Amino acid sequence: MIYLTRREHFNAAHRLYNKTWSDEKNFEVFGKCANPNWHGHNYELFITVKGDPDPNTGFIINAQELSRIIKTRIADKLDHKNLNIEVDFLKDVLPSTENVCKAIWEQLEPYIVNGKLHCVKLQETENIYAEYFGE
Amino acid sequence: MIYLTRREHFNAAHRLYNKTWSDEKNFEVFGKCANPNWHGHNYELFITVKGDPDPNTGFIINAQELSRIIKTRIADKLDHKNLNIEVDFLKDVLPSTENVCKAIWEQLEPYIVNGKLHCVKLQETENIYAEYFGE
Amino acid sequence: MIYLTRREHFNAAHRLYNKTWSDEKNFEVFGKCANPNWHGHNYELFITVKGDPDPNTGFIINAQELSRIIKTRIADKLDHKNLNIEVDFLKDVLPSTENVCKAIWEQLEPYIVNGKLHCVKLQETENIYAEYFGE
Amino acid sequence: MIYLTRREHFNAAHRLYNKTWSDEKNFEVFGKCANPNWHGHNYELFITVKGDPDPNTGFIINAQELSRIIKTRIADKLDHKNLNIEVDFLKDVLPSTENVCKAIWEQLEPYIVNGKLHCVKLQETENIYAEYFGE
Amino acid sequence: MIYLTRREHFNAAHRLYNKTWSDEKNFEVFGKCANPNWHGHNYELFITVKGDPDPNTGFIINAQELSRIIKTRIADKLDHKNLNIEVDFLKDVLPSTENVCKAIWEQLEPYIVNGKLHCVKLQETENIYAEYFGE
Amino acid sequence: MIYLTRREHFNAAHRLYNKTWSDEKNFEVFGKCANPNWHGHNYELFITVKGDPDPNTGFIINAQELSRIIKTRIADKLDHKNLNIEVDFLKDVLPSTENVCKAIWEQLEPYIVNGKLHCVKLQETENIYAEYFGE
Repeated sequence: MIYLTRREHFNAAHRLYNKTWSDEKNFEVFGKCANPNWHGHNYELFITVKGDPDPNTGFIINAQELSRIIKTRIADKLDHKNLNIEVDFLKDVLPSTENVCKAIWEQLEPYIVNGKLHCVKLQETENIYAEYFGE
Repeated sequence: MIYLTRREHFNAAHRLYNKTWSDEKNFEVFGKCANPNWHGHNYELFITVKGDPDPNTGFIINAQELSRIIKTRIADKLDHKNLNIEVDFLKDVLPSTENVCKAIWEQLEPYIVNGKLHCVKLQETENIYAEYFGE
Repeated sequence: MIYLTRREHFNAAHRLYNKTWSDEKNFEVFGKCANPNWHGHNYELFITVKGDPDPNTGFIINAQELSRIIKTRIADKLDHKNLNIEVDFLKDVLPSTENVCKAIWEQLEPYIVNGKLHCVKLQETENIYAEYFGE
Repeated sequence: MIYLTRREHFNAAHRLYNKTWSDEKNFEVFGKCANPNWHGHNYELFITVKGDPDPNTGFIINAQELSRIIKTRIADKLDHKNLNIEVDFLKDVLPSTENVCKAIWEQLEPYIVNGKLHCVKLQETENIYAEYFGE
Repeated sequence: MIYLTRREHFNAAHRLYNKTWSDEKNFEVFGKCANPNWHGHNYELFITVKGDPDPNTGFIINAQELSRIIKTRIADKLDHKNLNIEVDFLKDVLPSTENVCKAIWEQLEPYIVNGKLHCVKLQETENIYAEYFGE
Repeated sequence: MIYLTRREHFNAAHRLYNKTWSDEKNFEVFGKCANPNWHGHNYELFITVKGDPDPNTGFIINAQELSRIIKTRIADKLDHKNLNIEVDFLKDVLPSTENVCKAIWEQLEPYIVNGKLHCVKLQETENIYAEYFGE
C-alpha cells in the first residue's frame, strides 16, 4: 500500500455565518470572519490516494489524471467563487475549513476508482488546515 | 544604508471590475476575476525601510514598531475586508495587485519616520506579486 | 472525525547537555549542540485537534480560541526563552526536539476540551521535526 | 512512541518508460514524462523513525547519525544520477515516485537500528509526493 | 513605475559540460554536475515586468497573458526536456544557471510589449538562483 | 552582468542588549529580545555575487566554491554559537539583524574574488530580514 498526494489550488470568497443566529451572535462567535461583505483565501488542497502501484506503470493513479479529476470535480467549482452562495455541493453548508474539507471528500470520493481516496487536506492559511479521512 | 523588511498578512475579498464597462467587457478582460459574487486571497505584504542603523539600538527602525505601524495603518483596514467596497484608501481604486500595492505605499509612507520607506511588495498568490518603490 | 491543525511559533535558546556526563562526553555525543554558550532556533509548532464539527459553527474548536490556548499555555512560556533554565514544565528535561515535543503535549492536553488533542508536531529546523500522538 | 523526521535532498534525471511497450504506448500513457532525452527533479526525501527517546540523550536516533545513514545509503547513490540506468537498487524498477519511494524503504530499513523506520516520503515536485509505511 | 512578477515552472535534465575540454577536466571543474548520464532540477522561473498600470484595468500587463507568453515562448520549450540537446535557443549554450537565465531573457524580451521586461530570475534549487536585468 | 545567489544557514543564540544602558532601559527598548538568558534563531543567509559568466564554465563563480567560502568565513563561525560573546568579527557589535548583516559583508567581501559581492541578505525569521549592498 503506497500513498500518493497531489496538490491543487483555488482562490475563493466566503464568510462564516449561521443563518439561524442574529448578526450580533454571529459576530460574537465568528468575529471578523462574519463580515457580511465577505473575505477570502488562497486555499491549497492536498488529495491523497492509496493503493498498490500498477506493475506496468508504477502508478497507483496517474498524477495527471488525478489532477484532472480534482480540477473538474472540485477546483473548477470553487476557484474564484463565493463558497456561501455559488457552489452546488456546499449549499446549506457553513463554509468552515472543516465543513468544506468534508464536503470535498464526499464530492470527490466516487470519482477515485484507481486506488482509494485516503485523505482530503484543506489548507486555508499558512497557519490553519483541516484533514478528513472518510470516517 | 541598510534595508530592513517586515512581512505582514491580510485575507480579503475582491473582484476586478471597471465600472465604466459593461459586464460583458469586464468578463472579456478580467475573466473569472470579474465574478460579481467576489473571490479572495491570502495577501502577503513585505514592507522595506532603508536607513542607517541607530548606534544605540542597531535598528533602522524597531521591527516591533514597524509591525505596529503596518498593522494599524494597513493590515487592520484590509484584513477580512472587501477591497472594492470597504476600504477608505481604496475608494475608486480598481483593486489589481499593482493598484493596491501603490495605494498601500501612499497610505504608509507618511508614517515611516525612522528610516525611509523603500519598497512595498504585495503578494497575491504564490505565483503573482507587485512591487512599488515610490516613483 | 475531522482533524484541525493550528501553527504557532516561538524563538528560543537551548543546548543539548546531560548533567550526569562530563563535558567531554557531552561534546562527543551532542557535538556543537552542546555549546555551553547556547544556540537557538525558530521553532514551529503544529497542534492537531480531532473531533466532530459543532453543527452550529462548523468548528471542532474555534481556531482563534485554539491559538489563544497554545499561546497562553505554551508559546508565551517558550518564546524568547532559554529552554534549559527558564521553563517551568521543562525543568529536568533534556531539551531535544523529541523531549520538548512530548512535554508540550503533557502541558497542553488538559486544556483542549473542545475536541481531543491528536498530535503535537515540533519543527526545529527545515530539516528536522518530531511528532507525538500521546502514547 | 515519538516520531522523528529528517529531510534530505537529491537532484536526479529520469524518464517514465515501460520497456515491454512500444514508444507510442509509452507516450500515450506517460506523456512528456517518457521523453527519451530525460528530464529531472529536485527530490526531497523525508525519513521518519519511531521509538522511545533514550533517557540519556533525549534522542530516538541522533539526527546527525540519521542524516549520515540517509546520505550514505540513499542520497549519495541518487544525487546527480540517472534513476533509470545508474542506481544499483533501482535496476529494473520503473522510476515512478511510488516505486522509488518503496525502493528507498527497502534499501534503508536494515540500517535503521536505533528506533524503527516508520515512513519514507518522497516529494518529486511541490505538487506531488508519495509515502510508504512498509506494508 | 510598478513591477509585476509572475512565477512559472519547468522540470528539465541537464549536465555541465564544456565540449572543448577532456572528460577529466570537466569532472575536475564541474564535479558530479558533469555526469554524462545527466541529472535534473525543478526550475522555478520568476519574470518581472515594469510599467505604469493601465487606468482601465489596473494592470501593467494582464498576469494571465504574461503567463501564456512565458509558457509558449519559454516553459513549453524547456519543460520535461534536456537543456543540453533539445532546446533551440540553448544550442551551443553551456546550461549553467547563469547562462540559461540570460538566454531566457533574450528569448522572452521581444514578446513583452505591454510594459518592459525588467528581470529574469531562475531558481535551480532552494539554495541557488541567478538574476539578469538585460545589461 | 548577471547576479548569482547562494543560500546558507546557521542556528545561533543572541540577545539585544546595549551595555551602556541599565537593564530597565534595555527591556524598555528591546522587550523580550533583551532576555539575559538568551534566545535564538534559524538564520538564513543569501549571498549575491555579480559579474560576467566565464565563457568556459558559464559561471560567475562556482556555486560550490561560493558555498565553501561562505561556510569557512561566515557560517562555521556563527553556527551553534552565541552571537554576543563567541564571534571574533562581532566583538562589540550589538547583534541586531541589520548589524550582523553588515558585519557579514565586511567579513566576506575580501574573499569574493571571482565576481564582486553585491548583496548580503540575512533572514532572522520568516517575517524579518535585512539587506546590505556595501554602501
